[in-house]
Amino acid sequence: MQISSFGDARQLDESDPLREFRDCFDLPEGVLYFDGNSLGAVPREVAPRLTDLIVREWGRGLVRSWNGEWFDAATRVGDKIAQLIGAQSGEVIVADSTTINVCKLVYAALAARPGRSTVLSEPGNFPTDLYAVQGVIRSLGGRHALQLVEIGELTDSINDDTALVLLTHIHYKTAAIRDMRAITSKAHEHGALVLWDLSHSAGAVEVDLNGAGADLAIGCGYKYLNGGPGAPAFLFVAHRHQTSLDAVLAGWMGHAAPFEFSDEYVPAQSIRRFTSGTPPILAIAALEVGVDIHLRAGIRPLAAKSRALSECFMGVVGPFCAEHGLSISSPRASEERGSHVAITGPDGLRIMRALIERGVIGDFRAPDTLRFGFAPIYTRYQDVWLAAEIFREVLETGAWRAERHFQRGRVT
Amino acid sequence: MQISSFGDARQLDESDPLREFRDCFDLPEGVLYFDGNSLGAVPREVAPRLTDLIVREWGRGLVRSWNGEWFDAATRVGDKIAQLIGAQSGEVIVADSTTINVCKLVYAALAARPGRSTVLSEPGNFPTDLYAVQGVIRSLGGRHALQLVEIGELTDSINDDTALVLLTHIHYKTAAIRDMRAITSKAHEHGALVLWDLSHSAGAVEVDLNGAGADLAIGCGYKYLNGGPGAPAFLFVAHRHQTSLDAVLAGWMGHAAPFEFSDEYVPAQSIRRFTSGTPPILAIAALEVGVDIHLRAGIRPLAAKSRALSECFMGVVGPFCAEHGLSISSPRASEERGSHVAITGPDGLRIMRALIERGVIGDFRAPDTLRFGFAPIYTRYQDVWLAAEIFREVLETGAWRAERHFQRGRVT
Repeated sequence: MQISSFGDARQLDESDPLREFRDCFDLPEGVLYFDGNSLGAVPREVAPRLTDLIVREWGRGLVRSWNGEWFDAATRVGDKIAQLIGAQSGEVIVADSTTINVCKLVYAALAARPGRSTVLSEPGNFPTDLYAVQGVIRSLGGRHALQLVEIGELTDSINDDTALVLLTHIHYKTAAIRDMRAITSKAHEHGALVLWDLSHSAGAVEVDLNGAGADLAIGCGYKYLNGGPGAPAFLFVAHRHQTSLDAVLAGWMGHAAPFEFSDEYVPAQSIRRFTSGTPPILAIAALEVGVDIHLRAGIRPLAAKSRALSECFMGVVGPFCAEHGLSISSPRASEERGSHVAITGPDGLRIMRALIERGVIGDFRAPDTLRFGFAPIYTRYQDVWLAAEIFREVLETGAWRAERHFQRGRVT
Repeated sequence: MQISSFGDARQLDESDPLREFRDCFDLPEGVLYFDGNSLGAVPREVAPRLTDLIVREWGRGLVRSWNGEWFDAATRVGDKIAQLIGAQSGEVIVADSTTINVCKLVYAALAARPGRSTVLSEPGNFPTDLYAVQGVIRSLGGRHALQLVEIGELTDSINDDTALVLLTHIHYKTAAIRDMRAITSKAHEHGALVLWDLSHSAGAVEVDLNGAGADLAIGCGYKYLNGGPGAPAFLFVAHRHQTSLDAVLAGWMGHAAPFEFSDEYVPAQSIRRFTSGTPPILAIAALEVGVDIHLRAGIRPLAAKSRALSECFMGVVGPFCAEHGLSISSPRASEERGSHVAITGPDGLRIMRALIERGVIGDFRAPDTLRFGFAPIYTRYQDVWLAAEIFREVLETGAWRAERHFQRGRVT
C-alpha cells in the first residue's frame, strides 16, 4: 500500500474499518505516537476502571473481593489473550514479568529434557531473554550452555543435544518475523522444546501457537496490548505439557489447593501451576482493558492494518532516508515483518531526539537503530504521512545537528 | 492495656496520637475490619494518584515518562520501605511477588554457600516460602534439602551444613515473633545466611534488620503497607552482600547498563541487580501511597498502638472464648507477638462466617485458626470493643451454628 499525499492518507483513514477504535485511547494533542511497540497508549477506560476497582472492589469489598472476580483474574485475562495468539482457553495466564516467565519456562524445559545441554538462541535477541537464560544456566552449575547462532543458520544448528530453542517471534530491533512453524517443527524432530517470546507480536500480528505446534511462549502486556508501564506479562504452555512441566518458581497460588496451607507443594494440574505468587489485581485490571479492545477489533483486521501502515511509512521515507545515509533494516516483505520499522544509520539518537522534540515519538535502540511502531488499534494513516513529512524535514534541514546533548537514551 | 467498656475504648481513641491517620483510609460503613494483615484497607489517595499517573504520566507523557520518575520507582519506594524495617537507603527494592523474591534470594544464598546442603525452616511456615524453596531445590537437582524443625529446636539445628535459614519474622498463623537477632547471630557463627520474610512485620512492628545483622529479607506490599490486592513485594539485601550475590532470575533492568542492549549479562553493582524485569509502575505507585502514610505516622507509635489494640482485644475476648472452647494461640506477651491475634478451636470457619455476616471481618486459616489483625494505622479501640462484643454474641447465642454452607474459605 502506498500514499503520496495527505489526501491519500485521509482517504485511507475514512475507509479504515478500525477507525472507531482510536477513540478508545487518550492520545495527547500535538503528538504523533510511534512507540506503541514500547509502551502502548492509554485506553480511556483504564482510569475509570481502576477507580472503580480501587473504590468499590478493594475499598468496599476489602478482602472479600478475593471470593469474587479477583481469584481467577490471571486465568480469565489469560483466556482472552489466548484468542489473540492462537491458543486455547486454559493455556495462557497473566503473571509476573516477561523476565520471570522466561526463567520459569527455561527451568521447566531444561528439567524436561535431561541429558541435553544446549539452549539455542540468536545473538541480538532481546537482552532480558538472554540474561534470564544465562542466569538459569549459572544456577544449574554450568551443565548447560547458551549457544547463539545467527538466524540463518539457527534451524540447522538444532540437534539432539538441543534442550530448548528460545527466540523472539518478532525481533525487537528489526521487526523480522521468525518462522514459528518451521523452527518448531525442526526442534520437535530432534526432541527439543521451543519457547517463543511474543512481546512484539501479541495484539499486532496474527500468531497461531497451536497451529504451529508451539510448546511454550511468553509475552509482554505493555506494548501492543496497552496494559500500562510495567504491566504484567503472560505465559503460554500447551495443554499437552502442562502437567509434566515443573514450575520451580513455585508459590502458593500455583498449589493444587492453596487454601489448605500445607507444607508440601503439590502443583495445580493446570496452567495455574505457573502462577507463583498472588496475582497483581490492579495491574491485571488495567491490562484487561487493553486486551478487551483488541478482542473487539479482531486480530485479523489489526494485523492487516499494521502491515498497511508500515508499508505506507516505508514507501514515503525510504527514498529520502537513502539520500541521507539511513537505511531501512526491517524486511520489506510484509509477511516477514512485524508492526514496527527499523531504520539504521549514524547519528540515530540525535535524529530521534529531533523528531521527539517535534512531536514524532519513536525510539532509539543502541547503537544505531531508530524504531517506529505502528500500533494498528489507534494509529492513523494521516499520522504516518505527517510523521514522514516531519522526518523528511529534520533530515533535509539538518535540524538534528542542533541536538547537542548526547545522553544515553532511556526510552524503553 | 485493658478496656472494659465502650467508653474506655472511646477515651483511648481520643488520646490516640495516630487518630488522624484513619482519615487517610476509605473504610466502608457497617464494617469492622480486622483483616488488614491479609489485605490492607484502601488509602483515599490511591484512586486520585493512579488517575493522575494514568491520565497525565502515561497518557500525556507516554514512553517519555520513563525518563522521569518511573525508572527509579523500584528503588525510590524501596528506600522508603527501608526506613520502616531498619535498613539503609540502597538496600531495598520493590519488585515482583514475595514468592519470586524468595526464589531469587534462595538461589543467591545457595550459590554463595557451596558445599552446604541444608535450608532450614519451620513446619507451618507460610506455604509460599516453603514451596519456593522446594522448587529451587528441585531445580538444583536435589543436592540440597529443606529441613523443617520446630521453632524451639531450630536454633540448635543450625550447623556447618546450613546454607540458609528461612523464617517468617512474624508467623502468619500465630503472630509469634521469631528472634531475628539471636537466630541471625547463631547462623552467622556457623557461616550460614538468613532470609527473613517480613510479610506480617512491615508497617506493623519495629524491625531492625541492620541492628540484627540481617543478610536478606523479603516482604509483602498488600498487608500492613496497604498497597492493594497483589501489590508488588519488596526485597532487602544487606549492602555487604550486594555485589557478591548472584541474581540468577536476571533481567534487563538488573543489568549494569540496560540500554546498551548487550548479549552478555553484567549485573548492576547495587540492589538493582535483583530487579529482573520492567518495574510495575501502576502497582508501585499504589504501594507508595500506603508506604508514605506509614512514614508520616512513624513506625514506633504504630508498633506501640498495634500492641495496645491486640492486648485490649485479648483482654475482652479471652474469658468468653475460653468458655466456648476457643483458645488464644498467639503469645500473650506483647514483645513476642505481631499485630494479629489467632484464636483456635473447632468450628472456626463457621464462627468466622457468622462474624463476617455481622460486619466483623477477620479471616480463617485451615484447619482451625481465626485471625484478627490490628492494623494500627486505621483501627480504633472502639472497633476492637465492638468487634469483641459481636464475637461474644455470636458465641453466646450460638448464631454461628446457622452457617450451614461449609465451603473452603478463600479469603487470603
